[in-house]
Amino acid sequence: MPRTAKNVLFIMCDQLRWDYLSCAGHPTLATPNIDALARKGVRFSRAYVQSPICGPSRMSFYTGRYMQSHGSNWNGIPLRVGELTMGDYLRPLGVQTVLVGKTHMTADKEGMERYGIDPNSIIGVRVSECGFDPYERDDGLHGRGPDGGYDPKRPRYNIYLNEKGYPGENPWHDWANAAQGEDNKLASGWAMRHARKPARVKEEDSETPYMTRRGIDFIREAGDAPWCLHLSYIKPHWPYIAPAPYNDMYSARDVIAPMRSESEKREPHPVYGAFMDHMVSRQFSRDEVREEVIPVYMGLIKQIDDQMGVLFRFLEDNGYFENTMIVFTSDHGDYLGDHWLGEKEFFHEPSVKIPLIIYDPSSQADATRGTVCDELVEAIDLAPTFVDVLGGDSVEQSHRLEGRSLVPLLHGTAKSWRSMVISEYDYSTQPASVALGKDPRDARLFMIADKRWKYVHAVGFRPMLFDLEKDPGELNDLGADPVHEGERQRLAAALDAWGLRYSQRITRSEQQIRNMRGRAERRGILIGVWDEGDIADELWKGYLGDQ
Amino acid sequence: MPRTAKNVLFIMCDQLRWDYLSCAGHPTLATPNIDALARKGVRFSRAYVQSPICGPSRMSFYTGRYMQSHGSNWNGIPLRVGELTMGDYLRPLGVQTVLVGKTHMTADKEGMERYGIDPNSIIGVRVSECGFDPYERDDGLHGRGPDGGYDPKRPRYNIYLNEKGYPGENPWHDWANAAQGEDNKLASGWAMRHARKPARVKEEDSETPYMTRRGIDFIREAGDAPWCLHLSYIKPHWPYIAPAPYNDMYSARDVIAPMRSESEKREPHPVYGAFMDHMVSRQFSRDEVREEVIPVYMGLIKQIDDQMGVLFRFLEDNGYFENTMIVFTSDHGDYLGDHWLGEKEFFHEPSVKIPLIIYDPSSQADATRGTVCDELVEAIDLAPTFVDVLGGDSVEQSHRLEGRSLVPLLHGTAKSWRSMVISEYDYSTQPASVALGKDPRDARLFMIADKRWKYVHAVGFRPMLFDLEKDPGELNDLGADPVHEGERQRLAAALDAWGLRYSQRITRSEQQIRNMRGRAERRGILIGVWDEGDIADELWKGYLGDQ
Repeated sequence: MPRTAKNVLFIMCDQLRWDYLSCAGHPTLATPNIDALARKGVRFSRAYVQSPICGPSRMSFYTGRYMQSHGSNWNGIPLRVGELTMGDYLRPLGVQTVLVGKTHMTADKEGMERYGIDPNSIIGVRVSECGFDPYERDDGLHGRGPDGGYDPKRPRYNIYLNEKGYPGENPWHDWANAAQGEDNKLASGWAMRHARKPARVKEEDSETPYMTRRGIDFIREAGDAPWCLHLSYIKPHWPYIAPAPYNDMYSARDVIAPMRSESEKREPHPVYGAFMDHMVSRQFSRDEVREEVIPVYMGLIKQIDDQMGVLFRFLEDNGYFENTMIVFTSDHGDYLGDHWLGEKEFFHEPSVKIPLIIYDPSSQADATRGTVCDELVEAIDLAPTFVDVLGGDSVEQSHRLEGRSLVPLLHGTAKSWRSMVISEYDYSTQPASVALGKDPRDARLFMIADKRWKYVHAVGFRPMLFDLEKDPGELNDLGADPVHEGERQRLAAALDAWGLRYSQRITRSEQQIRNMRGRAERRGILIGVWDEGDIADELWKGYLGDQ
Repeated sequence: MPRTAKNVLFIMCDQLRWDYLSCAGHPTLATPNIDALARKGVRFSRAYVQSPICGPSRMSFYTGRYMQSHGSNWNGIPLRVGELTMGDYLRPLGVQTVLVGKTHMTADKEGMERYGIDPNSIIGVRVSECGFDPYERDDGLHGRGPDGGYDPKRPRYNIYLNEKGYPGENPWHDWANAAQGEDNKLASGWAMRHARKPARVKEEDSETPYMTRRGIDFIREAGDAPWCLHLSYIKPHWPYIAPAPYNDMYSARDVIAPMRSESEKREPHPVYGAFMDHMVSRQFSRDEVREEVIPVYMGLIKQIDDQMGVLFRFLEDNGYFENTMIVFTSDHGDYLGDHWLGEKEFFHEPSVKIPLIIYDPSSQADATRGTVCDELVEAIDLAPTFVDVLGGDSVEQSHRLEGRSLVPLLHGTAKSWRSMVISEYDYSTQPASVALGKDPRDARLFMIADKRWKYVHAVGFRPMLFDLEKDPGELNDLGADPVHEGERQRLAAALDAWGLRYSQRITRSEQQIRNMRGRAERRGILIGVWDEGDIADELWKGYLGDQ
């Protein structure tokens, strides 16, 4: 495809619900800068992640492939050496592919050792960073416990904080994610009761503005060479704690009512029921928790919006709106007590649906500016979109990129579009799998949805079914309702057909396969020939010579 | 597992039907040496390949994984860097894993370049040879045509023939696979009408005894270090031509009647019908072709049996029966005109079922010596079997090895066994896909079978169904018979469940997944905590200190 953008700025938030933006209808949370981007581009109202949890979702964004295809099924499960990522597709187009912030990637050390790849070589670093060149890698999860640190590396952000006068080994926790408690103790952000206390860090030194500045630093340094920058914020992900003034910008009055019903707790689907039993779900089912945490969650989003203002002004001032595709999205949502659940990791809309806004600088996109697209879009669509706008051809890569380029939707030229989206969740590391006695290999959940119906296949259990048209709040599980057997069969059949796709024939493209037809014969492999006259004379050349 | 064999000798023939051995009931073909091995070990009467064509079938043998999982779906489609092979499992057990003969592997050059793997390094050679150290690689397909040679490398066998006084650039063809024609012309083995003429090479210099000697050479050189030797013959694969005396050891009188019926040609399943239209199928539907080719096919098998005699005597004389597991098998069968088909590449028993004999030297296997095992066995079971007998634990590798160790069947201790086998075929490079207008990604065939029923799912078409009990010849396709809707649904559901397995979560084992439960918490990631009292004090260490 002809290149229609020079750069791609791929902004991701973490755990940002699709509906916590004013452009998506939030009644009390104003996000004017993000809304302004939506007015310049397209907001997708039905964008789904391939798995409602950080690591697997991100690996799908970065590989353009379903979770079942890339195999990095949970946080901490390495993306195998051999899976191609955005960098593998974009670098051959002359585009440096760079990370600032979070990926939740775990390196496949065993695989690198098997193939003699030095983890410190350029290739090794890219394999370890899901294909990005890390300008700054920071997953924003610098917890420490009795077994050591969650993140093996000390982040640059901690060094920054030290330099700014915040002492200690882990100022990420002690200053940016803790408040001042009583008796000279820390009020750790890990305890949600402290959520509305101000973090001890100054706002300008907190994570969101820090990462914005790092992104701008990269763009300044990049000069004229084309780039794809993944600017990946940790917020509004927990620990739910914000610096002043964002910590008390909102109050319980601004919190929207939870989407839940007592009926959901009566004979719930067994897996859903087991998720309701998780500690985080029990906590978020309490109004006290919601009223303390959600205002801060909103404050963290407000801070992001303000930082988008900073970033977009920089881009505007430097002409980047002329030549840069800008994507704003998230890796999954947050239940916040909806459906009696906390965290994400299940398939209701607050968890599996994401905000997605795309600004396309090309004039072909003028027709769609400021519109809302309600087509079914998947996280895996971004990689092929970037390939296409940066001058590649995503269709040539369709043997490994399972998503579809969004360019036809951005240009308003799509004649047809997909009718189903898929999401998956592997709960084998979760308490639910222990409670239900499930072996790791059987702790499998699949969601398939069209615009009206959402079907959840839980291996070993009955399915769940929601009518998104009549029951947009997803309060009424029709998974056992005999009336809807036909819908369930239809969706199950579509999921089954998906399961039998070829996702691993990644070393030959569709066109290369077509070119293989008849090729062996022209290289002297003559199958099923009885007589020399059965095939063209030229194929016998060298086989019948004088002896 | 405790090591129960020091070495594994993994013998494979190419295109050897399961029923062309006297121990499997062939009435006119005596294979006393192979039969003797069966008397010492176990003969498996229901062993199936994962795909009835060389390359994909072998990649399943070597990776222990289904074709849909490893993605090398056809001859010439590279096995991706990142797929583990036998060598990756056996070398850590101190076992050199060595190839003599054919693999049909195509190297993933693009993948090696992506990861900076030098194809000539030890790692690069192994990646290029599906994990084996090649003592001798020879696919036995040294055709040449207008577009050049099928195999890019000149085989050592051609050098050997030159040295033995057979001149020319390609004595493989001109001497080993051609007879003397009229008027000083070659009678190429590629034309089946010449099948019964003697190849121009002396018997002792033909491919089968050559490769036997190469295998013995390796074993002699290997000394005391444990090994797994893949001794992989090209025969009785086409070109169907044999040196004297094997060329006329059998005649049309020895040819068993074809398994076929006129009724099969009336309204056949569309894909089956398209395969019947392939040239090789039309040829093998003619009695003249069968009567000329099958006697030579039998002669080539007889030659293999004689070479097994040579090999087994060597092993006996040198004590290898004390410490070496010996496997005799094939990569798929050959229709030879059964069901109006030639070649393999479809799912009737002559194509998809293979001979499999395993001699286990350990005393635990004494209980089963000389028995026939009728359990459902798959080609992918060999890799985990080798892991177990050589001292590893295949269950620990079950996140990537999809087969099951056969050791419990060999020891007579299996309490339960699988109830279904799966085989696949990707016909996207074949004329049938063009005839049927199928895109490469949709040219998918899946077989699922239990001991009684065989079901073929052809994407985009109705299924096929055979009752192997009432119709062991598979002449009556029940795929559209309303009476058998229940069987079809049952088998389709089992295939669909298989399609939704996790086959790519290969970087973490089941046990490692279990060990991940609760791990993040002990590394300082505290999710859903409201109050410091909600979780153990030790988890707060470092978070609440004096400030």
